[in-house]
Amino acid sequence: MASENKAMRVERLRAWMRREGLHGLLVPRTDAHQSEETAEHDNCLEYISGFTGSAGMALILEDSALIFVDGRYQVQVLDEVDLDIFGIRHLHDEPPHEWLRENASQGWRIGLNPMMVNAALFDRIDAALMERGAELVQQDQSGFDEIWIGRPASPLGPIRPMNVAIAGESSSDKRKRVAAELRKAGATVLVETLPDNIAWLLNVRGSDVTMNPVPHSFLTMDDAGRVNWFVDRRKLGNRLSDFELEDLALSDPEQFLGHVAGLAPSARALVDVDFAPKSVQSTIAGNGGAIIAATSPLTIAKARKNSTELRGFRDCHLEDGAALTNFLAWLSREMDAREKSGVPLTEMEAQERLLSFRAARSGFLEASFGTISAAGSNAAMCHYHSRPETNAAITRAAPYLVDSGGQYSNGTTDVTRTLMLGEPTPQMKRAYTAVLKGFIALLMAKFPVGTFGHQLDALARLPLWEMGLDYDHGTGHGVGHNLLIHEYPHRFAKKPNLYGLEPGNIMTIEPGYYEAGAFGMRIENQVEVVEAGPGFCRFESLTLAPIDLSMVDMADLTGREGDWIDTYHATVFDKLAGLVAEETLPILAEWTCRRANSAGDGA
Amino acid sequence: MASENKAMRVERLRAWMRREGLHGLLVPRTDAHQSEETAEHDNCLEYISGFTGSAGMALILEDSALIFVDGRYQVQVLDEVDLDIFGIRHLHDEPPHEWLRENASQGWRIGLNPMMVNAALFDRIDAALMERGAELVQQDQSGFDEIWIGRPASPLGPIRPMNVAIAGESSSDKRKRVAAELRKAGATVLVETLPDNIAWLLNVRGSDVTMNPVPHSFLTMDDAGRVNWFVDRRKLGNRLSDFELEDLALSDPEQFLGHVAGLAPSARALVDVDFAPKSVQSTIAGNGGAIIAATSPLTIAKARKNSTELRGFRDCHLEDGAALTNFLAWLSREMDAREKSGVPLTEMEAQERLLSFRAARSGFLEASFGTISAAGSNAAMCHYHSRPETNAAITRAAPYLVDSGGQYSNGTTDVTRTLMLGEPTPQMKRAYTAVLKGFIALLMAKFPVGTFGHQLDALARLPLWEMGLDYDHGTGHGVGHNLLIHEYPHRFAKKPNLYGLEPGNIMTIEPGYYEAGAFGMRIENQVEVVEAGPGFCRFESLTLAPIDLSMVDMADLTGREGDWIDTYHATVFDKLAGLVAEETLPILAEWTCRRANSAGDGA
Repeated sequence: MASENKAMRVERLRAWMRREGLHGLLVPRTDAHQSEETAEHDNCLEYISGFTGSAGMALILEDSALIFVDGRYQVQVLDEVDLDIFGIRHLHDEPPHEWLRENASQGWRIGLNPMMVNAALFDRIDAALMERGAELVQQDQSGFDEIWIGRPASPLGPIRPMNVAIAGESSSDKRKRVAAELRKAGATVLVETLPDNIAWLLNVRGSDVTMNPVPHSFLTMDDAGRVNWFVDRRKLGNRLSDFELEDLALSDPEQFLGHVAGLAPSARALVDVDFAPKSVQSTIAGNGGAIIAATSPLTIAKARKNSTELRGFRDCHLEDGAALTNFLAWLSREMDAREKSGVPLTEMEAQERLLSFRAARSGFLEASFGTISAAGSNAAMCHYHSRPETNAAITRAAPYLVDSGGQYSNGTTDVTRTLMLGEPTPQMKRAYTAVLKGFIALLMAKFPVGTFGHQLDALARLPLWEMGLDYDHGTGHGVGHNLLIHEYPHRFAKKPNLYGLEPGNIMTIEPGYYEAGAFGMRIENQVEVVEAGPGFCRFESLTLAPIDLSMVDMADLTGREGDWIDTYHATVFDKLAGLVAEETLPILAEWTCRRANSAGDGA
Repeated sequence: MASENKAMRVERLRAWMRREGLHGLLVPRTDAHQSEETAEHDNCLEYISGFTGSAGMALILEDSALIFVDGRYQVQVLDEVDLDIFGIRHLHDEPPHEWLRENASQGWRIGLNPMMVNAALFDRIDAALMERGAELVQQDQSGFDEIWIGRPASPLGPIRPMNVAIAGESSSDKRKRVAAELRKAGATVLVETLPDNIAWLLNVRGSDVTMNPVPHSFLTMDDAGRVNWFVDRRKLGNRLSDFELEDLALSDPEQFLGHVAGLAPSARALVDVDFAPKSVQSTIAGNGGAIIAATSPLTIAKARKNSTELRGFRDCHLEDGAALTNFLAWLSREMDAREKSGVPLTEMEAQERLLSFRAARSGFLEASFGTISAAGSNAAMCHYHSRPETNAAITRAAPYLVDSGGQYSNGTTDVTRTLMLGEPTPQMKRAYTAVLKGFIALLMAKFPVGTFGHQLDALARLPLWEMGLDYDHGTGHGVGHNLLIHEYPHRFAKKPNLYGLEPGNIMTIEPGYYEAGAFGMRIENQVEVVEAGPGFCRFESLTLAPIDLSMVDMADLTGREGDWIDTYHATVFDKLAGLVAEETLPILAEWTCRRANSAGDGA
């Protein structure tokens, strides 16, 4: 991208806008599936602005332009966009619709692609423009086809079947169950636009976007379980018989809205309006259909993993734990020698090495997200990814944080460890001990079935709060089964989450602490929600990897906390001893046999 | 009420319905202010059905009738209503609008008073009836004037001024502050229907409903702070100069909606749509006004107590603590002797005695809610109030629970203690120790300013959860300043509460445990949210009364928990020693000097 002047792109877009009779164009960051990670083809916002963050929107006007980004990206955006072209606005404090309500001129026609935003967002902007006597024009993204020289094609990532021996339930049985839910909700049809829900229902996995094994496609299912799948057939290859396609009609994605329009007149369509594009809602409503706004029954069913999926999660964590432990042992051996040699280990080298340890494991497919391999002050940036310009040395001076995971044929992993290979400062010890105590608090908690994530979030923060500290991210999220690393709907956060936890849910638990310019630390296990007596549940760790205790003030741990660590480490040793490399074994033994239960009374 | 056949009331109402051309009438439990406690005049639901619970709705049809009550009241309703007349439905599982959607006949005209329900509820029922080709008719409650023989008049409780020396801020200054908030929200007028908000703004207290010192009235205020107060003038007496009535116009409550209609055409009216009657919304919308739906700025401002109000809370808790401690000491002296005498103490006698101890204190006005004085299995019912038929003996066999409070001229109190005067069972000790640990956890917590109640609720439950136990009520609520005992908006509960806590808020903390048919226990302190370092706060106890430790397993307390109890008890002794009766002093000393910090490591 550096080869072309960004201003030229904006000028080409403006020329196209003039031809279309538009005074402005809103450019969202998302795709038609509200994906967290998007395909190159869909990165219109990045193309036009250079901004690479995961949320934002640009407004290109005739002789000015704005980009709206949230608090996380206020610094990054200054590096990435040309400030001669773009003004910066806060996505939440002064969102596009508020800006337009204040500033739009009468008669303005502003374009927005109704496939890229949900109805609530579209309608907010629409209402604001109406107040000014201006108009929001439904406008597809085709302008970018014209002006984006060398625009990548829509992805055609091959789709593979997931065998029922791994999925644990046939697609046909899933459809029956979900059809019953549809009938219970009074719906005649489900209109689905979330690729991970489609992948789960049809027992398929995709490859349109690296590390996100979900097929970009759309789907409708009626209340008898009959499915129309709108997917580019080239993704399915020639062996259609490998797929569970009974009672299923294949169509091109371009036919999706037309099909929805056709079934609308007699339909009561269940639509997850938080995620469905505005186009879906307006197509149904515009053709006389009724919309039942509800969380997709696929979202709910998918989050309750079956016993086969759970076994897959446990199995792939054996592989993943061995890989990560081999890496941590390698790191602890190498680091010292490399630092002394004058060519210290770097973040990017470590990250590459970690990937190769994972790649050697059975069932490994690819990473499950971009690794955070962060030394020293880089680790203080929660969403850091190492690049050649930032690639720091891993040394004894500060903790090294590594947050990574793998996609395996039978599950998905997500784990963070923080290693201190030198002498920690007292502040590092205090903070790390508090993070560990918060982590253990959630892992020890027993709670009623149906407890909400917003009730449990504070348990992990309390020891940090006690010191006047906190972390500015959620405490954990759902994880898909060889699906998305951030799986909706469960989440531990301050914000309300109205999806109660129940046995079979998979979550991460990941408190941390970040001291800007100095260091960052986080401890993360993936966990399964399991039964714990009538009406209650608790978390059981899936992650198997030693937790570094070199920054822990043992005297600040309670006896129960020490016991928890010792029991966890004993399990880690028992399960991994036969799986790790020979040279890893002594280090694994040392790490996991360090007793923590000599602890004092820190409660 | 026992003197008249309930069936006759329903028949008179049906005759009135026929004259009005109605096929049915919905009878809500609330009044025009969505009051938790209502005046006799407004108890139409109780009059027609006998049901006395705090939530519910009846549907009287031509030849059948239903009453909808929630889970708390499914048992009570069976005792109170005539099952030959009323069918019972669950208020949440099968609410009136769902029932009507299934069962209404075409052409039905169903009446509902739009002053008694908010717009959301009215519109839900309206939509359900429309689907059936039936109609919801706006119908005032005047039918009850006709058919309710001896209906009590609307209350005319005298209104008294609250001196600025107690309120801490003049009404004029409050109006200026709130007017600024109105302007900030883009509103030209506030339309207020909540009596406690009106009382706070005008520095007045009312007496329409016992223990609820708020004046039934309505109010509008424009963005320059000019007020129209719609209140029956007879409530104000003859000394109008005692009130802060500058820039304020007085009108009759009957003129409220007409006034709103008059200002609507040019208004952007801020309305708290969760509480405002449907009539308010339809009057504004029907006259061309715009509604800004938001929490009333009075609700927000009122919850942030000023330093004078906080001093009042602290002062009245000295009085209240002395009264309660005198009572507890009296109870512990009397109980044993009375049990031996063969005429044991009873719940109602104790409750009366407690009131007389409070009545002797400076500044005491009346109780702040109906006392819960509950022995043995009666205490297992969270909302129990002793009656002659249930009035149990207070004995050594089971804990005695007393939840009570006072309205004082300078504040409001709410406190619960549970006393075990005999030998507790192991299960009582385990449960009480867990309740105490949860109580202390919240009282020791330090948390960021703005933390939501739903984040903290679980801290108080965790020790019970650990044992597979829980309690089926919230963990605490806001309290008004000589206003309502349950003051909106703050609350500790599982349900989301999006009002962040900040210094100056007043809350209760009241975990409990209830074993049906056996015993109940609860420990409750009222607390103030205070600063605790930059950006953080914690709870400081206002309540001053010893906590019974006779059911505590001291070995299960951590050192910090023991220290908390010892420090709290030392404060209780220091502050109350000079205030309690002479005969109370040795018992207070014994209770508060019992050391808890010999505790083990129970964390």
